[in-house]
Amino acid sequence: VEFDLIESIRVRAVARDDVLLGIGDDAALLQPPPGQALAVSTDTLNAGVHFPQETAPADLGWKALAVNLSDLAAMGAQPAWCTLSLSLPQADPAWLDAFLDGFLALAQGHAIALVGGDTTRGPLSVGVTVHGFVPAEFALRRTGARVGDEIWITGTIGDAAAALAQWRAGDVCDPALRARLDRPTPRIEAGLALRGLAHAAVDVSDGLLADLAHVLRASDAGAVLQAQALPHSPALAARFDATRRLPLQLAGGDDYELCFCAPPAAHAAIGHALAAVKTPAAVIGRVVAEPGLHVVDAAGNAIDVASRGFEHFTEAGR
Amino acid sequence: VEFDLIESIRVRAVARDDVLLGIGDDAALLQPPPGQALAVSTDTLNAGVHFPQETAPADLGWKALAVNLSDLAAMGAQPAWCTLSLSLPQADPAWLDAFLDGFLALAQGHAIALVGGDTTRGPLSVGVTVHGFVPAEFALRRTGARVGDEIWITGTIGDAAAALAQWRAGDVCDPALRARLDRPTPRIEAGLALRGLAHAAVDVSDGLLADLAHVLRASDAGAVLQAQALPHSPALAARFDATRRLPLQLAGGDDYELCFCAPPAAHAAIGHALAAVKTPAAVIGRVVAEPGLHVVDAAGNAIDVASRGFEHFTEAGR
Repeated sequence: VEFDLIESIRVRAVARDDVLLGIGDDAALLQPPPGQALAVSTDTLNAGVHFPQETAPADLGWKALAVNLSDLAAMGAQPAWCTLSLSLPQADPAWLDAFLDGFLALAQGHAIALVGGDTTRGPLSVGVTVHGFVPAEFALRRTGARVGDEIWITGTIGDAAAALAQWRAGDVCDPALRARLDRPTPRIEAGLALRGLAHAAVDVSDGLLADLAHVLRASDAGAVLQAQALPHSPALAARFDATRRLPLQLAGGDDYELCFCAPPAAHAAIGHALAAVKTPAAVIGRVVAEPGLHVVDAAGNAIDVASRGFEHFTEAGR
Repeated sequence: VEFDLIESIRVRAVARDDVLLGIGDDAALLQPPPGQALAVSTDTLNAGVHFPQETAPADLGWKALAVNLSDLAAMGAQPAWCTLSLSLPQADPAWLDAFLDGFLALAQGHAIALVGGDTTRGPLSVGVTVHGFVPAEFALRRTGARVGDEIWITGTIGDAAAALAQWRAGDVCDPALRARLDRPTPRIEAGLALRGLAHAAVDVSDGLLADLAHVLRASDAGAVLQAQALPHSPALAARFDATRRLPLQLAGGDDYELCFCAPPAAHAAIGHALAAVKTPAAVIGRVVAEPGLHVVDAAGNAIDVASRGFEHFTEAGR
């Protein structure tokens, strides 16, 4: 059974000149480009933990790759290769075909080759490891934020958490929100465009507050965010008023937008660079010397995020 | 919880000069050596499928890395980096410490850096991706076997399957046999020594017949194996007579020895090269033009492996 699945994966993989040997031997043989660092990230999605058991296989395939590509985007890396470890309760060719439809649709869109993997029997789980390239000096590390930097976010946030909230409440899911949860867009082109412009970046997978806090801790700094500056989609605004929106935007994860810190002097250049790759972005706050992460309202008054249960929300949302 | 586990992994990782950025950012940044191919392999072990739920965590840590390193050994690659995806039913620092004891004991013995990973909640499962280097022209591919090649096996085979058979039967496990099942030794040095000498190689994970069949199919050839030439350990011979030993040696997996094909002209050079890395090896057969895999006894009579239920044995052993 295992070998049939691997074969059905092999025949559908993208070809690349730098793949000397793909699926089918003990290991893949790859040719990294000279003069660049290899960026490697790995993430696993488990049924019932990271996605509902009944998730459409094509959506799962897409998302399992997307969450990994998002990590490469947050490093400013150009993705190239991936491996796939798939645990399935039983061999199911139709399920696997649909899964690969979603996985490979995203892979092919970025010319990423699936170079290896294994299929095993077990509870439904998808592990992906992605490989990309970035000149080491241009990598967008978490440690680079500096006091005075503007804090940016690409696109809009809160949609995926809103879809999850609707789903959990048994409400009809808005299709636009649901699409953000099921088929997130890794911000690869934005990550590449920010090379040499941004000081630090992270992708929003666990929630804006949690993910930005990693950057701030690593950079030994704090931040003040403007609640009213958080960009939201029309779909989110139509279903959730500002009060209900805020926790979704601050603590909801799964949007896979990039949050990055950059000097104000780079503001115009960033605007141009992101416009060139059709990625909207907005400044949502500022890096400050005092440790901690503070959110203020339009009048400049602090919003006590801890007392409003955002932590709890995050926990429930995992 | 996730971040505490990652932190406890991070502080114990091996340092290497070619790791520009290890655990703790969106991706690791690595510096591959110029002029070599990057060899990448991934394997996942699931509780209840690949190992009993009650396996000692240190043994599981060792084995999860060992089975992956074995794939690199079978390519003739020098291992360098690995990532770890760990699914755990609950956060358990003592379990994780023990797991890392086993994992890192093997990693440190080969100066392999753990550069990334993720810990998730879910059924116990360990996914590892390993990275190594090999000049592309020296890689031991499965496609290279030629008619007339000698077929070799390193070490001894059958021990791991014997331990599994004892365990399944509720018998007392012989410690020497059990050690082969719990803490297999990836034949890394042997793989490196065989560069430029062997035509093709595979590691014995699913069983000698199954794994050699992959090489033969890829190389468009067949083979004749001498049953009496299969090397066995003293522990195996003490517990299993020749008749009971044969299916364990032919169809039992999990020994992680290297099976390789090489021209008879290289016989002496291979003997020297493997002796230099203290790896015993024996010739067990010959590559032939006629497709198929035949096993013969000491008198040269064919042993009908299919009728003796080896396939079934393999299935039950998975």
